[in-house]
Amino acid sequence: VIGIGRREQSLRQASEVGAITDGTLELAQGVSKASLVVVCTPVDQIAEHVLAASRSCPAGTLITDAGSTKANIVEQVAGALDSRARFIGSHPLAGSEKRGPSQSQADLFVGRAVVITPTARNSQQDLAEIEDFWTSLGAQVLTMTPQEHDRAVAASSHLAHLVAVALAQAVPEAHHGLAAGGLRDTTRIAAGDAELWTQILLDNRDNVLEALEPFERALGALRKALESGDRPRVRQILMDAKKKRDALGN
Amino acid sequence: VIGIGRREQSLRQASEVGAITDGTLELAQGVSKASLVVVCTPVDQIAEHVLAASRSCPAGTLITDAGSTKANIVEQVAGALDSRARFIGSHPLAGSEKRGPSQSQADLFVGRAVVITPTARNSQQDLAEIEDFWTSLGAQVLTMTPQEHDRAVAASSHLAHLVAVALAQAVPEAHHGLAAGGLRDTTRIAAGDAELWTQILLDNRDNVLEALEPFERALGALRKALESGDRPRVRQILMDAKKKRDALGN
Repeated sequence: VIGIGRREQSLRQASEVGAITDGTLELAQGVSKASLVVVCTPVDQIAEHVLAASRSCPAGTLITDAGSTKANIVEQVAGALDSRARFIGSHPLAGSEKRGPSQSQADLFVGRAVVITPTARNSQQDLAEIEDFWTSLGAQVLTMTPQEHDRAVAASSHLAHLVAVALAQAVPEAHHGLAAGGLRDTTRIAAGDAELWTQILLDNRDNVLEALEPFERALGALRKALESGDRPRVRQILMDAKKKRDALGN
Repeated sequence: VIGIGRREQSLRQASEVGAITDGTLELAQGVSKASLVVVCTPVDQIAEHVLAASRSCPAGTLITDAGSTKANIVEQVAGALDSRARFIGSHPLAGSEKRGPSQSQADLFVGRAVVITPTARNSQQDLAEIEDFWTSLGAQVLTMTPQEHDRAVAASSHLAHLVAVALAQAVPEAHHGLAAGGLRDTTRIAAGDAELWTQILLDNRDNVLEALEPFERALGALRKALESGDRPRVRQILMDAKKKRDALGN
């Protein structure tokens, strides 16, 4: 497992925690003997790094990524991929608001969903290999088109980020002393990397704005029920939300 | 530690986990020798239970509660408390969306804030006793007026509940398979008891509606920045939210 990084220190840390067996600052050198390349950079740079890897890797190397959006990346790669390489987009739905090798977890992907987004260019062999890879880490693989993926994660992930960010902003710091677990949980992802999430939200902007609408409607209905003191309606909304949250699991 | 409950089974469970040393279904019997009574019922019933306890406890017994709102409870109790008892409102900011003795934790209050809301009727002795009680459980005691408390928790707790509820409702169940930790965290408290939270939100309605406004403004600003594709503005909002969330701690 060859780690390719921008800083010696990160590579050393990754080596120390056992995440990589060797490391290099040079992409071309790192992929020169690779059978599989996983590009884990911010979404704005993924296509560029996939294409750079495709020009330096051996013939037949399979390249994937771990980006939170897929349509633009897959489109940008499709037009320019070196013919000796193969690419399938991946999005592992795992991780946290923390970053760096010191936060790595060997079981990060166990029981988690990984979406792969093959296109007509991919063979059955490509699919089988990438599925084997993610499955070997304990993940459950789902197959979607890049467009389906982006629409779904706008609702299941990116919307929650918008909401957590707005909530973190809205609570006056003077009241932080009264914060219990609820506020901490609800705002946790707002501590995520701001640049990384700016890229994700803008890359998937149309879907994110569409996913925001049902949230605004639900919040508006709750506001209205509170304003009018409509106890049965407030209770019904809370019961409905609890049922949906219980269905989501821990 | 005498537990007073509505069902034998709950009392048995509470006894098994070591939360109580004895239990009864009769409030009058349970408080007959109490030096301290802690009423832990839904907010709509707290005043009634405090008053009932005050009529059956020994002279001088100190009564408190664990309700998430304070102004209405303190006001209802003040006018009708039996002269032999003393009351100070408490709100321990700890707990989870789960319920029942099987979810009890001996260290639940360690490092957590507990707000007490004394009034002019309370003596220094009352304050010292209730502070000793919560401090003995590991909590940090804050003193506020009932009105200050209700305004503060509307922002630090009740707002987060509204937001989690609306988010749980807004995410289509079809996309639950793609939920990662972010959505789970952000919606967790929506799994809380619907009746209990209906009472809290309605009891503290004016403050909750007021606390909702800065959230709506923050979300509106984020929506606008996304709609216009204003990358520096989106990044600035996310950086500001991260700074505030980091300040909140884990």
